[in-house]
Amino acid sequence: MAKKTSLPLAKVYQLIEPGPVVMVTTATAERTNIMTMSWHMMIDFEPPLIACVISNRGFTFDVLKKTKECVINIPTVELAEKVVACGNVSGRKLDKFAKFGLTPRAALFVQAPLIDECYANLECRVIDSKLANQYNVFIVEVVKAWIDRSRKNPHTIHHQGYGKFVVDGELIKLPSKMR
Amino acid sequence: MAKKTSLPLAKVYQLIEPGPVVMVTTATAERTNIMTMSWHMMIDFEPPLIACVISNRGFTFDVLKKTKECVINIPTVELAEKVVACGNVSGRKLDKFAKFGLTPRAALFVQAPLIDECYANLECRVIDSKLANQYNVFIVEVVKAWIDRSRKNPHTIHHQGYGKFVVDGELIKLPSKMR
Repeated sequence: MAKKTSLPLAKVYQLIEPGPVVMVTTATAERTNIMTMSWHMMIDFEPPLIACVISNRGFTFDVLKKTKECVINIPTVELAEKVVACGNVSGRKLDKFAKFGLTPRAALFVQAPLIDECYANLECRVIDSKLANQYNVFIVEVVKAWIDRSRKNPHTIHHQGYGKFVVDGELIKLPSKMR
Repeated sequence: MAKKTSLPLAKVYQLIEPGPVVMVTTATAERTNIMTMSWHMMIDFEPPLIACVISNRGFTFDVLKKTKECVINIPTVELAEKVVACGNVSGRKLDKFAKFGLTPRAALFVQAPLIDECYANLECRVIDSKLANQYNVFIVEVVKAWIDRSRKNPHTIHHQGYGKFVVDGELIKLPSKMR
């Protein structure tokens, strides 16, 4: 089990802002699911608000509308094959945790599970579905954030289309006034 | 002048999806401006729709509400210092093109200028401001996309907060069914 500690909510944007591929978990009374997602953005720092595009053709869309809860799990490059595999199949009839050897772990505030193998996990509640019908856009509030601080150099992946992913490279520091 | 060719609109998401820091240009009859932006996401493939967060404290917010046009310019790591410098000052009283030695170039469909030094430029029209007052979110449609195909290995930058940027690293290919 990964040793995760609490991350201040005001730092959540540092995970989402660079545009990593993430895995969204949801749960109903009967089952859990995982969806791979690249279309998301921060919209506020604290409480951290994130806008996500969840296709209305997928299983997650209906579950999210009903339960209004999910976890945004942030994988690193070591998990890339499983991330992509989760994106290639529907969870309607498949238990992706079992199929791909991922470990569900209980969240603190939501029913959806954390993916233990991901280096960070954001427990989220849907706060706005105004744009869900027209654009498949949900706005979620992060209510709890977890991070594995023992991972010293976590490299996320960024989808460039058709299975091409760019992995985080060099870090540069510039005297930015941007938060 | 960079030699740019037209990019099919259906490929625009391959630029925005990985989460690069971008520069948004706008124009009024009197002047142009540049805003550095990290909070954006694709919301549809074609026509490409992009959601952006534009702070209501900035100069760009008012101009965008009025003109409903902008260009999303995508810089590579070579421009990182100028990208950050543009993010550190307001354009209310400063001509950022002149100040930072960037070259404005006429767009085809919008009044806002392309930044010639950026390796790709997306001409955009605001199509939905429903969430602008509450969340500072604008939805824009890309009406024309330009790319410099002579740039063989363009590395974008991704903001991780407080002037820390991760540069694109290694490319990996995985058998994804994800578009």
